[in-house]
Amino acid sequence: MQVLLGPGTEFDRIRAIAARLGDRASGLGDDCATIPDGPGFLMVSTDTSVEEVHFKRTWLEPEEIGWRAAMAAFSDLAAGAARPIGLLAALTSPDHGEDLVRIMDGVGDAVRGCGAVVMGGNLSRGPVLSLTSTVIGRAPRPMGRSGGMPGDGIWVTGSLGGARAALVAWNAGRIPSRSAREAFARPVARIEAGVWLATHRAHAQMDISDGLAGDLGHLAAGCGTGATVVLENLPIHTAVPGSAELAGQAPEVMAAEGGEDFELLVALPPTFGSPEADRFRAECGLPITRIGTLTTEPGVRLLLDGHPMTLRGHDHFG
Amino acid sequence: MQVLLGPGTEFDRIRAIAARLGDRASGLGDDCATIPDGPGFLMVSTDTSVEEVHFKRTWLEPEEIGWRAAMAAFSDLAAGAARPIGLLAALTSPDHGEDLVRIMDGVGDAVRGCGAVVMGGNLSRGPVLSLTSTVIGRAPRPMGRSGGMPGDGIWVTGSLGGARAALVAWNAGRIPSRSAREAFARPVARIEAGVWLATHRAHAQMDISDGLAGDLGHLAAGCGTGATVVLENLPIHTAVPGSAELAGQAPEVMAAEGGEDFELLVALPPTFGSPEADRFRAECGLPITRIGTLTTEPGVRLLLDGHPMTLRGHDHFG
Repeated sequence: MQVLLGPGTEFDRIRAIAARLGDRASGLGDDCATIPDGPGFLMVSTDTSVEEVHFKRTWLEPEEIGWRAAMAAFSDLAAGAARPIGLLAALTSPDHGEDLVRIMDGVGDAVRGCGAVVMGGNLSRGPVLSLTSTVIGRAPRPMGRSGGMPGDGIWVTGSLGGARAALVAWNAGRIPSRSAREAFARPVARIEAGVWLATHRAHAQMDISDGLAGDLGHLAAGCGTGATVVLENLPIHTAVPGSAELAGQAPEVMAAEGGEDFELLVALPPTFGSPEADRFRAECGLPITRIGTLTTEPGVRLLLDGHPMTLRGHDHFG
Repeated sequence: MQVLLGPGTEFDRIRAIAARLGDRASGLGDDCATIPDGPGFLMVSTDTSVEEVHFKRTWLEPEEIGWRAAMAAFSDLAAGAARPIGLLAALTSPDHGEDLVRIMDGVGDAVRGCGAVVMGGNLSRGPVLSLTSTVIGRAPRPMGRSGGMPGDGIWVTGSLGGARAALVAWNAGRIPSRSAREAFARPVARIEAGVWLATHRAHAQMDISDGLAGDLGHLAAGCGTGATVVLENLPIHTAVPGSAELAGQAPEVMAAEGGEDFELLVALPPTFGSPEADRFRAECGLPITRIGTLTTEPGVRLLLDGHPMTLRGHDHFG
């Protein structure tokens, strides 16, 4: 798309980004993005991805940095049961090199994959590469973290621990397996799953960004309940067993502690069972697994071999 | 307000921020912010404020860092003629100290001043303090940078150069005057003015964030016109003359080059004259001044003493 801006190095870079995005962008160049009125609720979320904190540049191609940051933000819309409309990209970088265009190319692919467009953004100088993605979607029936009741089943989509398996390999100076690297570099926001679950009696849902062990505490707090999870029931990513051995950890523990899988964590009524899970799998193209139960008794209990485990949730300042 | 989150240092900090914000925040703790449907258009914009790039911590109190970053974002909504609804704050910081709460206190004051609420955000570790504010508003008649026609008057609200006067003083190792410091630390988004102008036949409008000399080029590009501005006509901030002398610059040049005044730059039909400007002043509580004309001839001409001047626009990577 063409962007009508005056002269300047910064604006040349914005023009180059807009040219690369093509029809994956819309309405760039004004002070605001404009969204026409529509039915339901607008849902908005923001997420930041910082070099050396969320990723290292040696691990990822620039396109993957952009894809991953955008998908992490879209994952919040999936949790809210919203269909994405647009994304605003606030990019901070020490320079204005070609990498910015490649990063935004990856953002553009993620945005197209989620049925949205890049609607605007901001380009700024800063000591490290950082991308704050703000995403906007629309939900006929918005979902949140409250609404789950004692007795509800706790379910997760897809599998857990893949991104963590890649991190463990990189941190040990090894090259992650192809499937682990893919889980880290190319996560997919569970948009269709989020909408499906909202229309099939989900009581509460959120995405797993900080790791199941941490995010379970948020779900229980949101619902005003406790939670019991049996770790043997976790759907474990295929890359986990090898990496868990390297880390000297049980695979279940790695899957429960690992963050940034961007799967959905859902409270479903007790009547939701195997037939419904089979239907979910057929219609959304990924599994959903029951891992535990919301409880009247407060607190989160993670059981392995029948024993309670104390696991770490991800904490940015921990 | 109360935020239902699980345990952890990061979440303790979010709880402390939410407690300080009180009723200036709403709906924190979920993955998404939710906005009910309403008439008109949703307008969204994002803006980043980075330590050592946009401000130094020795210049500003934490509350002022927050206020200024939020107002810079709201200023884009003013340009779009939108009334603010909410703000999402993505905060990056090397630590999780009390300063984050004070910064968000300033954000909260700016948000309340603009009739909005803090609807969500993100907290992340990073090498320097950085705040990306995404703002959402609603406009019955959205405004943008296109629509101005040759012959339209070019007008600016308020006065120009105050923030620049403070910067010049700080960079020369001096203490800025009280009014210069106020212009830099406590800018006010021209929300009422933006709505007023949109309902009084404005053809195009934007906010002056990069300085008039640079932003005029964007307005002309957006309108597909040229622009001629007579610098003697600029409304100059009272702090400019003293600072301009220090910088060895004409006050008009400092006012034209100075960024981050967050006044509105507007293309109004030729029939908009002094009586309309008087009405604007009476109803919006600030002056509006005609400084030039959109032209058929392309390019931007800035005249001082009848001579064309070449001035610098602000460029983050220049």
